[in-house]
Amino acid sequence: MAMQRTPLLMSNIVERGAKVSPNEEIVTATEAGVRRQTYQDTRDRAHQLAHALKAVGIGIGDRVGTFMWNGARHLEAYHACAGMGAVLHTLNIRLGAKNLEYIINHAADKLIIVDADLLPLLEPLRDRVPCVRHVVVATEEGFAGWSTELPNAVDYEAFIDGQPSQYDWPQIDECSPLGLCYTSGTTGHPKGVEYEHRSQYLHTLTQCLTDSMALSAVDTILGVVPMFHAMGWGIPWSALMLGSKQVMPHRFMSPQRLLDLIVSEGVSISAGVPTIWQGIKGLVEANPDAYDLSCLSRVTCGGSAPPASLIRWYWDALGVEMVQGWGMTETSPLAALSRRVMKRSQLQLSPEEQFANMAKAGQIMPGMEIDIFDENFNPLPHDGKTIGEILVRGPWICSEYFNNPQPERFHDGWLLTGDVGMIDPEEYLIISDRSKDLVKSGGEWISSVDLENHIVALDGIAQACVVAQPHPKWDERPVALVVLAPGKSVNAQRIRDHCATAFAGWQLPNDVLFVESIPLTSTGKMDKKVVRANLAEQGYQLPELRARAG
Amino acid sequence: MAMQRTPLLMSNIVERGAKVSPNEEIVTATEAGVRRQTYQDTRDRAHQLAHALKAVGIGIGDRVGTFMWNGARHLEAYHACAGMGAVLHTLNIRLGAKNLEYIINHAADKLIIVDADLLPLLEPLRDRVPCVRHVVVATEEGFAGWSTELPNAVDYEAFIDGQPSQYDWPQIDECSPLGLCYTSGTTGHPKGVEYEHRSQYLHTLTQCLTDSMALSAVDTILGVVPMFHAMGWGIPWSALMLGSKQVMPHRFMSPQRLLDLIVSEGVSISAGVPTIWQGIKGLVEANPDAYDLSCLSRVTCGGSAPPASLIRWYWDALGVEMVQGWGMTETSPLAALSRRVMKRSQLQLSPEEQFANMAKAGQIMPGMEIDIFDENFNPLPHDGKTIGEILVRGPWICSEYFNNPQPERFHDGWLLTGDVGMIDPEEYLIISDRSKDLVKSGGEWISSVDLENHIVALDGIAQACVVAQPHPKWDERPVALVVLAPGKSVNAQRIRDHCATAFAGWQLPNDVLFVESIPLTSTGKMDKKVVRANLAEQGYQLPELRARAG
Repeated sequence: MAMQRTPLLMSNIVERGAKVSPNEEIVTATEAGVRRQTYQDTRDRAHQLAHALKAVGIGIGDRVGTFMWNGARHLEAYHACAGMGAVLHTLNIRLGAKNLEYIINHAADKLIIVDADLLPLLEPLRDRVPCVRHVVVATEEGFAGWSTELPNAVDYEAFIDGQPSQYDWPQIDECSPLGLCYTSGTTGHPKGVEYEHRSQYLHTLTQCLTDSMALSAVDTILGVVPMFHAMGWGIPWSALMLGSKQVMPHRFMSPQRLLDLIVSEGVSISAGVPTIWQGIKGLVEANPDAYDLSCLSRVTCGGSAPPASLIRWYWDALGVEMVQGWGMTETSPLAALSRRVMKRSQLQLSPEEQFANMAKAGQIMPGMEIDIFDENFNPLPHDGKTIGEILVRGPWICSEYFNNPQPERFHDGWLLTGDVGMIDPEEYLIISDRSKDLVKSGGEWISSVDLENHIVALDGIAQACVVAQPHPKWDERPVALVVLAPGKSVNAQRIRDHCATAFAGWQLPNDVLFVESIPLTSTGKMDKKVVRANLAEQGYQLPELRARAG
Repeated sequence: MAMQRTPLLMSNIVERGAKVSPNEEIVTATEAGVRRQTYQDTRDRAHQLAHALKAVGIGIGDRVGTFMWNGARHLEAYHACAGMGAVLHTLNIRLGAKNLEYIINHAADKLIIVDADLLPLLEPLRDRVPCVRHVVVATEEGFAGWSTELPNAVDYEAFIDGQPSQYDWPQIDECSPLGLCYTSGTTGHPKGVEYEHRSQYLHTLTQCLTDSMALSAVDTILGVVPMFHAMGWGIPWSALMLGSKQVMPHRFMSPQRLLDLIVSEGVSISAGVPTIWQGIKGLVEANPDAYDLSCLSRVTCGGSAPPASLIRWYWDALGVEMVQGWGMTETSPLAALSRRVMKRSQLQLSPEEQFANMAKAGQIMPGMEIDIFDENFNPLPHDGKTIGEILVRGPWICSEYFNNPQPERFHDGWLLTGDVGMIDPEEYLIISDRSKDLVKSGGEWISSVDLENHIVALDGIAQACVVAQPHPKWDERPVALVVLAPGKSVNAQRIRDHCATAFAGWQLPNDVLFVESIPLTSTGKMDKKVVRANLAEQGYQLPELRARAG
């Protein structure tokens, strides 16, 4: 042994922020304003929470569910579970009761911490989750008088009150489980991804690299992405390690409230899905002089690819760099990332070339392997043209699902991501589509994502969703569903003409349907499965087939 | 198993630079100019070198010595050894033949790669290192016609010529040895520190954090610190991972040449010991308008603490941030680091307060534990006043020396650093001195480093070295050796008066000796052991004792 065998436990880094910046703030949005709490307090309360959890029988490896918004108490649960070796199971509050019931029982959560305002969503499960022995109710302003039908419910503050603020974290194996997060499966039951101390430790370091998200103790971070999505994209862990100011929106998720928080708290970096940034863009455009956003330097966008026009707008209008991240629950999630200038040779690029790179999914994070393969798992060339299934390998990539291995999702140590795309000669990953959302027309593939991003760049379009529809000759053809911006009118021909400036004739949508809204998944992405199901239910047919039928 | 068990091998990150920036440059200084080589070429040549090493019998775990300047071929040796699982043993070219003989035999190096101009330093070992079966001679411009008395010597280019440029790196245990570096011990034989893949992997990520050295692929990095000192402070590894442009000075280590390289190659970050930066400061001051240093944003200073006045000069005169790093060969080396603004609360500090923080050894790197202890290993308070012995613990800290455990240098899993210092309430580490260089006067400690830094801030002083001298009553008293700047004259009284502005009477040096130069160690630090030995040899006595004797 030449070097110390210090295990890569999150408890070894999660308290650094409180050590070096004890007085820095965790800010939680409330009805009337915000609630502030220092890192030192957060650390002390996390130790108290760990003692309280232990007192009711939570041990190393036991699952502790959270059914919570982003807030200081949720962060305390992160910290406490990481320290004591319990497994933080972040429940998705957007899921229906049936999925929740399955997930809680599958994970065998022994205790659930729930935000008081979310109790009504959990109460339908009352007699259906026998594994849950305790419910701890966290309250923010206005919810002190909560009551619930759930058995064994106790107030969070009463739960931790009087517990010591020093818990000697156990030294456990670095590959011990740290967290659990279920993906909303498109088929079958949701599947659990179990994060480990080692994997999250490495992910945390990687996220804070200058050539990654460049998180710093100088930053004020607003994580809009829920802490129940892939551990809030890892941001709570990074912030705890660094001691960055954290701003947490709790249940106040409207673009207006988020925008106000950015301004009032001096947020320097935020992270969320593209729809959030579309919403904020709309507010700023409607009232260009109302907001001083000089504090904001970058926003990280993930979940789905932001349109190039959105990236461009944030830079041109606000001087804000939109950092695109690519990953999924199974990849912890950060696997690739794209910044405006990622290397020295890009300093000389024109703004247009820089934006073109930003619209790619990004460059591979150190330690990751990302490659594209054909259907027989032969690697494909990195020429920026050949499309293949994207597989990922590395120390924070899922190797099987929790108590449900799903071997068909893995190949020879690689994770099959379900995304298809290209890798260019500079090793940029370019996502074409989810493999199940590609339009297969006449033996060629049409990317629904490319069409959507192009359509949404047209003035007057708020959202676009392209799905495949069956065609007797071509197998599938694309159809675009479009949501117009308020007060705007754009006709179908204009959209087709606009697409024709960038796509070949055979790639153009066969139909444009104007709709009020696009259904979203529980993670805020367009739910194309539901879109396709709705069209089928309505008996939708492509125009030329209708004509024939007629 | 929930996450993939990808081992933390340097081979998994060391080629990322060549992947994402194949055309970025490795620049090596030559007599007449520079030699340029791309990352792609460097990677291919490293694979060829690995094949060539394997062909002469180098296997996993075998030691490969390098006796080289900083240059592209040295980097190839780093890359090749990391990939194939051989152990890169970087020999310190400043050591005498006796120490080299001990080290090479102790490490049992099977092969040594040597820069042709350094052959004369190795030739005295001709029959004294029987373990060495091959010598590979690397040549830059002007040395093609080398010849040597060393047996089995082959030219580097001939050695790798015709080897395939693809070596399938073996998947070895992540705790396998990666490198070996001997510290020039002050007593007894030099001791070897063995770096492991895992430890260096974590060190590399940590060095590239925004809140650490913030290395980036956008940087042009000039590592002045030799690649035989603690793996060049880890910089070659980080640059290989990121794909940063690297500038390597080879044997051209004069401040003038370094300064010219910074300007001509557009260096953005450099790293070296304080004497280097003192030298460059002198050149710029002598000719203020001659150098466009707008490219340079920061210099990392390690090895010994830079005087506050030097930190200040670089910021005021050049807008260059001097980043102080603290560590040693045993700590891989980065353990703590100080930047101008390390956290949000420091944005509001006055420049003076920011400089005061920069003069501290720094904040603890994530994953490190640094603490101070009394002689019975009781932890001491972090009040910024209590001085104790500094101990370090963490995943890239040495746990024993190579084939020479030295248990007295370790305690309960911690490394005894040999430094003494304080930790302040914001968890800044402040080094007082090497424990063996402290002046113990009348039961109190006087920091030689503090006195030196104060003296050197006086106009006209180029260098200052404070050592203890025996005193019958006080046990020890400080004596200052001073080197004047060229053409300057400062008398002893002026120096004493200057010290009296900041130190108590009992802390002032009892004598000031004007000298031509201060002897340096092989790592470029002031060699106080030699200074003390020289004074003893000269029969030096403190003035008041001389007077009595007289």
